[in-house]
Amino acid sequence: MLKALLFDVQGTATDFHSTVCDEARRISAGRDAGVDWPDVVRRWRAGYFAALKIASAKAPETAPSPGSWVSVHSIYRDVLDTVLADAGFTGLTAAERDDLALAWQRLRPWPDVVAGLTRLRRTYVLATLSNADVSAVINISKRAGLPWDAIFTAEMAGVFKPDPAAYRMAATYLGLPPGDIMMVASHKYDLRAAARLGFRTAFVARPLEFGADGVADVAYEDEFDVNACDFVDLADQLVG
Amino acid sequence: MLKALLFDVQGTATDFHSTVCDEARRISAGRDAGVDWPDVVRRWRAGYFAALKIASAKAPETAPSPGSWVSVHSIYRDVLDTVLADAGFTGLTAAERDDLALAWQRLRPWPDVVAGLTRLRRTYVLATLSNADVSAVINISKRAGLPWDAIFTAEMAGVFKPDPAAYRMAATYLGLPPGDIMMVASHKYDLRAAARLGFRTAFVARPLEFGADGVADVAYEDEFDVNACDFVDLADQLVG
Repeated sequence: MLKALLFDVQGTATDFHSTVCDEARRISAGRDAGVDWPDVVRRWRAGYFAALKIASAKAPETAPSPGSWVSVHSIYRDVLDTVLADAGFTGLTAAERDDLALAWQRLRPWPDVVAGLTRLRRTYVLATLSNADVSAVINISKRAGLPWDAIFTAEMAGVFKPDPAAYRMAATYLGLPPGDIMMVASHKYDLRAAARLGFRTAFVARPLEFGADGVADVAYEDEFDVNACDFVDLADQLVG
Repeated sequence: MLKALLFDVQGTATDFHSTVCDEARRISAGRDAGVDWPDVVRRWRAGYFAALKIASAKAPETAPSPGSWVSVHSIYRDVLDTVLADAGFTGLTAAERDDLALAWQRLRPWPDVVAGLTRLRRTYVLATLSNADVSAVINISKRAGLPWDAIFTAEMAGVFKPDPAAYRMAATYLGLPPGDIMMVASHKYDLRAAARLGFRTAFVARPLEFGADGVADVAYEDEFDVNACDFVDLADQLVG
């Protein structure tokens, strides 16, 4: 019986594209003429994914120790320098780039998220399963009022999604078998990794994940237990 | 600057004594004539502490793997059989003893807790740092409406408090230095372990922790940064 839902955060629960673009414009304060922020943010996110893959390939076989983890914040911070250099934009000081990297800890939720989670929470245990740092998910959730029962992140498993150990860690901490848990994400690789371990899956379409000019895969698939257009639709389908 | 508060759960935030006594009476349903439940529950809790010390002494030097952890629920369940046998009470079936062991996942908060946490949460990040299992703290918190920003437990560190690694794990996940974090507990050994690592400390007196006939150490001490009579008093002192 379904008892708990695990949510991806960056992209699924939060609109990183518009938040980070807005923060970039705010911080550069008129000094960014000619900078295509939507494109820069898409490249930034892609650079983060590439760095995550490299970090995952380097991950030790043994269990992690808390001090050995490379924070996702430091990955975003490092990739930002590369992406800005590639765009030929030198208008931000180091302190401003530090501030901009923290935009990933101030992500706004999609407009349906708080309403959907509030309804779902009456029936299910709700937790995150994010690749972002624990502190980042706390900051995002506190600022946005996201009503999680628990926060789980890759940092607690010592590996990033889609490594199976990340999903298993969440099931262990929930004290539930995978079949009682549903992974909710807008990213199919995330759902497929969970499904291979016996978790249920809910795909949530986020057509604007990469902005109006970005390309997001929003096709519903029969392989997922639920396909939803947002968290309110998810609540409609799960709790009626 | 103080940014986050870590709370002990069993005893400090919740009244385990009255909850577990009430659950024992409910489950034994009139078949418990002559059983001194307050005494049995005190012995149960003491047996749990003794088992925790044995488990801590056996803990490996290496970092934990999620599957290797002995759950606190299983410790409570095992100790219950011993304590009931010692008390000469054979009136509960195995299923009833299973149910009674789960009373530790249904602990009621002290009456000041929700009000105090709600005020403190406007200013600080609030998280648990409990020796109870993650799933137990989720169950307790969801049932009681405890508004944590995050749940941290010994299970996530692979060691029980007062092992320094448990406190360090929480600081790492919060992304804060110990001096920005205050440990809140009714148990002085817990506060002293945190203080040795540079955490701030708040002692909360819980004179009824072991029931009306139990003995709790409720003496305020200058060594703690704050001494409070409950969570509302704590909020008064910290946020005014």
